[in-house]
Amino acid sequence: MGDRWETVVERRSGVALWRQIADRMRREIGAGLADEAGRMPPEVALAQRFGVNRHTVRSAIAALVQEGVLRAEQGRGTFVEKRRRLAYPISERTRFSDGLAGQSRDLKATLLDHAVEPAPDEAAAALGIAPGTPAIRLETISEADGRPVSRARSWFDAERFGGMAEAFARTRSVTASFRALGLADYLRLSTVVTARHADAADLRDLRLSPGAIVIVTIAVNVDADGRPVQYSETRFAADRIELHVAGSAGKARD
Amino acid sequence: MGDRWETVVERRSGVALWRQIADRMRREIGAGLADEAGRMPPEVALAQRFGVNRHTVRSAIAALVQEGVLRAEQGRGTFVEKRRRLAYPISERTRFSDGLAGQSRDLKATLLDHAVEPAPDEAAAALGIAPGTPAIRLETISEADGRPVSRARSWFDAERFGGMAEAFARTRSVTASFRALGLADYLRLSTVVTARHADAADLRDLRLSPGAIVIVTIAVNVDADGRPVQYSETRFAADRIELHVAGSAGKARD
Repeated sequence: MGDRWETVVERRSGVALWRQIADRMRREIGAGLADEAGRMPPEVALAQRFGVNRHTVRSAIAALVQEGVLRAEQGRGTFVEKRRRLAYPISERTRFSDGLAGQSRDLKATLLDHAVEPAPDEAAAALGIAPGTPAIRLETISEADGRPVSRARSWFDAERFGGMAEAFARTRSVTASFRALGLADYLRLSTVVTARHADAADLRDLRLSPGAIVIVTIAVNVDADGRPVQYSETRFAADRIELHVAGSAGKARD
Repeated sequence: MGDRWETVVERRSGVALWRQIADRMRREIGAGLADEAGRMPPEVALAQRFGVNRHTVRSAIAALVQEGVLRAEQGRGTFVEKRRRLAYPISERTRFSDGLAGQSRDLKATLLDHAVEPAPDEAAAALGIAPGTPAIRLETISEADGRPVSRARSWFDAERFGGMAEAFARTRSVTASFRALGLADYLRLSTVVTARHADAADLRDLRLSPGAIVIVTIAVNVDADGRPVQYSETRFAADRIELHVAGSAGKARD
């Protein structure tokens, strides 16, 4: 039942029915689909509600479980994960671990790879060095309570921050690494935010299911003299995080 | 040729092959897929490159044309739209039309609908009024050079800004409307940024193709005394805009 219709929907929209249902479910969870305890209606009720068969509902639920939106409890049913999205603050003083502290029990940054390479054009322009100048490329991943939250590629001037990779491997923090290398403070100069479908690397690194969305930020940090110290592209799992941009309007008056 | 494989890919990933190819094309355009004049390789070359048939390539191109990433020129081929994304600045002084001025020839905001309604919980909390207090709901759409860029729902305290809908219908600008109602200045207090798949309303309002992504911002503006004056949810077509968040680090030093 429903199979032929599903095929039609797939063909017409370019998005499989179970993925469409997963997206609708995700939205309706925000609008109170689950009960007060966060328990989802049974599969048969969901199938009826969305006008699809149970197989489709099961696929949609499986995708949402994988993304961390839902959680299956043996014998008890499916529950909405309470903390659906971490709030990642973007401000002049953006710091990865400070930003997420208190929102997760276990916050972990891991160095995946690093190299000294000729700075690509965009990184060179942002760092204020000539294209091709040796730069340190740092590949890192951050997890909160065991779930990958973001995957970053950062560039640093190799002349100024030679020991960055070793410092990061030891401290697991860009802020602590800068400090170890003599830079006591830095500020966020700019952040460009875009969103796109996850590519193969995102799916693997962030453990997403196909069709998932990543929010991409391109950020430049500067030292106290306004000199650029870090250029980075970070990919966030859109279902696990939201960016909180604070104006200074709140701070300005007390 | 390729049809059976396409079905398998669709079923496995939940995203139709033409949509996957459209996404890959979009990424590779950024990495130099087109020639220096912005002309795309011919269909047959694209089909070979992506290992799919021409029909799939054609569907992918059609989707990217509809989204404004590509432009077809009769008899000349397919070209990359030069200005692929508008830069929408988010700062303490976020103003819709100022922000996009200079990036498009024709910027237009239209009032779609408005009503006085009991403020829903979130809007009431943000505006600092009791839930259920009469509030003005403003539904607007903004277009740049004929393409929908964003669709917003804003809430205002009906007691303080009674003439908002009429002022907006006349001025087509929130800033000008506030001014007409005696509020000379306002500041952005906070912006929360998320991204999700476009739903049916987004597809219709923003003229997107299925599977497209919208960036959603939830914003609060305050007056000079820090009192909230506007709460709004805005949906941006992710392929047409990027958010530029300025830190104050740039301004702080000259």
